Amino acid sequence: MSAVTKPLLATIGGERQERPPVWIMRQAGRYLPEYRAVREKAGSFLELCYTPALAAEVTLQPLRRFDLDAAILFSDILVIPDALGQRVRFEQGEGPRLEPMTPEGLGKLRPEALGSHLAPVLETLERVKADLAPDKTLLGFCGSPWTVATYMIGGQGSSDQAAARLFALRHPEAMARLFDILVEASAAYLVAQFRAGADAVQLFESWAANLDDAQFAAYVVAPNRRIVERVRGEIPGAPIIGFPRGVSGSRLAAYVEGTGVDVLGLDYAVPVREAQQSLPPQLPVQGNLDPLRLAAGGAQMEAQAEAIIDAFRTRPHIFNLGHGIVPETPIGHVERLVEIVKQGR
Amino acid sequence: MSAVTKPLLATIGGERQERPPVWIMRQAGRYLPEYRAVREKAGSFLELCYTPALAAEVTLQPLRRFDLDAAILFSDILVIPDALGQRVRFEQGEGPRLEPMTPEGLGKLRPEALGSHLAPVLETLERVKADLAPDKTLLGFCGSPWTVATYMIGGQGSSDQAAARLFALRHPEAMARLFDILVEASAAYLVAQFRAGADAVQLFESWAANLDDAQFAAYVVAPNRRIVERVRGEIPGAPIIGFPRGVSGSRLAAYVEGTGVDVLGLDYAVPVREAQQSLPPQLPVQGNLDPLRLAAGGAQMEAQAEAIIDAFRTRPHIFNLGHGIVPETPIGHVERLVEIVKQGR
Repeated sequence: MSAVTKPLLATIGGERQERPPVWIMRQAGRYLPEYRAVREKAGSFLELCYTPALAAEVTLQPLRRFDLDAAILFSDILVIPDALGQRVRFEQGEGPRLEPMTPEGLGKLRPEALGSHLAPVLETLERVKADLAPDKTLLGFCGSPWTVATYMIGGQGSSDQAAARLFALRHPEAMARLFDILVEASAAYLVAQFRAGADAVQLFESWAANLDDAQFAAYVVAPNRRIVERVRGEIPGAPIIGFPRGVSGSRLAAYVEGTGVDVLGLDYAVPVREAQQSLPPQLPVQGNLDPLRLAAGGAQMEAQAEAIIDAFRTRPHIFNLGHGIVPETPIGHVERLVEIVKQGR
Repeated sequence: MSAVTKPLLATIGGERQERPPVWIMRQAGRYLPEYRAVREKAGSFLELCYTPALAAEVTLQPLRRFDLDAAILFSDILVIPDALGQRVRFEQGEGPRLEPMTPEGLGKLRPEALGSHLAPVLETLERVKADLAPDKTLLGFCGSPWTVATYMIGGQGSSDQAAARLFALRHPEAMARLFDILVEASAAYLVAQFRAGADAVQLFESWAANLDDAQFAAYVVAPNRRIVERVRGEIPGAPIIGFPRGVSGSRLAAYVEGTGVDVLGLDYAVPVREAQQSLPPQLPVQGNLDPLRLAAGGAQMEAQAEAIIDAFRTRPHIFNLGHGIVPETPIGHVERLVEIVKQGR
C-alpha cells in the first residue's frame, strides 16, 4: 500500500466510505469524442487494444473529464481466445466474430502463446500506472470462462447462449478441457496484470443468466473460484471484484460464497432492497444504475442514483452502472451523476 | 365444467396430482415433420396463424404423437400489434420485423380493428375444441404488454430491450398510452378466447429480465394485473397462467401476488429449490426443464426431469419446459420425456 489512500481500493478491502467511490463500466468508450478520435486512428478495435500508447491514452481519458476513482484497463474480454489462437474480429456495428470452436478444434489452442500475445496489454497497464494520480485505483479485468466460452463456441454473442449450453450437454469432456485451458489462461493473465500495476481486477461474467442450477454451479461458480484461488496463490490477498451479470436471488450469495470474490457487482435488474437484505451485511457491493437511466438523464436518473446509494449506505459500496455505459449517453449526464454520487443531490 | 376431469385444468385450479400433467411450450413447431409440411403449404408464418383449418391442424398434431395434457392455440404474441395496424412480417430465419413505433405513431393504432382481424384465431380455437378429447385442456394465450411493446418499439427482438426501456424513460406518457391500448386489446382478446373455447390462458412475459425495480413494477406487474382483473370481470374465475421469463428471486412471489395469476410459469434458469422454498406452498407452478437438456437427451435429461418433479412434489405442478422446445429436438427425446413425467423413470 502507498501512503496515499485509494478510496475505491479501500472499499474493495471492506471499508465503508461516507459517499461511495465511483467508476463506470465502459467509461473509456464511444460516448467520449476524444475516444472516438483515437479509435479512428487505431485501425481495428483489437489493434487499439494491442497498441499500448493508444490504449493507455483512452484508459486515462475519462479521468481527465470526471472525478472518477478508478481507471480500468482498456481492453476486451476476447483477447484471451485471440491470444490462444482462435482469432477474433470486430465487425463494424456487429460485435465480435470468431470461427466457432468444435471439440476437435480444442487441440489447436496454443496456451503457450498467451504471454507474448498479451504483452502489449501489460505494457498498457504499466503506462497507465505511471500517469495515474496516487489516489486512483487501477483496475485490470478478464472475462470469466463461461462468458468467454459462449463466444468461442457460438462464434458471436447471442441472447440465450444456446450453442455453448448445447455443447456443454453434448460434449461435457471437451467442455471440461476448454474450461481447464480458460481457467489457467485467465489466472495467468490476471497475475500478470497485478504484476504490471493493477491494484484490483474484475471478473466479467456477462452471460450468467441462462443456466440451470447444475450448469450455474459447474460453469460459473466453480471456474471463477479456481481463478480466484490460483491468482491469490501468486498474489496473496489479491483484490477481486466479481460481476455475474443477469444473476439474482439466492444465486448472488452462492456466487460470492462459492467464488471468494471480495466485491459483488450487481446487474441493474437486481432489486436493491433484495440485495441489501439477502447478502452478508459486510459484503462490499458494486452498482447498479441502469445505463439507460443515465442516457435518459434528468430527475429519474438522479432519484434512482440516490436511492441506490441510500439502500447500500450500511455496507461498503462502489457506485457504478449495472452494465456498460451506452454510446448515446450525453457527457453532461455523466458529469451530473458523478457530482451526485460524490456530494449528494 | 364437463363431467370428464381435465387433469391440467384441475392443477391450475390448485389440485395436486400424483404425477404432474404436462404440455410443452411451442409443442406445435418445427421439430415435427408434420408441422413443417403444413408450414410449407401455408405461405407466410402469419398466414398460417390466420388460417383456421391449418392452425387447428398444427395445434392438434403434437397430441396425436405424445400423451400431452393440453393443446395450445397455434398463434403468435405479435398478432396483437398486427391487428392494431402495426404490421408484422417474419423474415426467414430472422424473427419478426415491424416498423418501429414512435410516440407520434401511437395515434395510428386502430383498436377498433382488433375483433375482425383476430376472428380467424378464435375460429381456430372453436375448431380445436370440437376435435379435442374431453380430458385435454385447451390453452389460449397472449403476449404481455411489456413484451409486446419491446417488439413494437424496437421493431424486432433484442437481448436487452434497450429501445423500449429508453422509450419508457424518455416518453413515459406515450408509454402509458401504449400500455393502455395493449392492456385493453389483450384483455378483450383473452375474453374472446375463453368464449371461443379456451379452458385457460397463458400470459407470455418473455422479456421480463432487464428491468430495474420501478420498471418491473410499472411495466410487468401492474399491466398484467390489469389484464387479469379485466378478464375476470367478464369471465369470473378465469384460469390464468403467468410466465415471466427471466424473472427469479423475490420478484417471482411479487409477480404472483401483484398480478393474481393462478399458476406461475418458471424459466429453466430459476433454481427449483429456491422456488420451492420461497413461493407460497399451495401455489401451482409450471416448468421448468431447459429445452436444450431435452434436445441433448439421455441420462442428464431424465435425471433433471425427475429432479424437477421431486422438488415440486408437495404442490400443484404442471410439467413443462422452461422455454420453447427447439427445432433440432429429436422426437424420441420428447416421447421419452412424456413417458418419464407420466410414469416415472
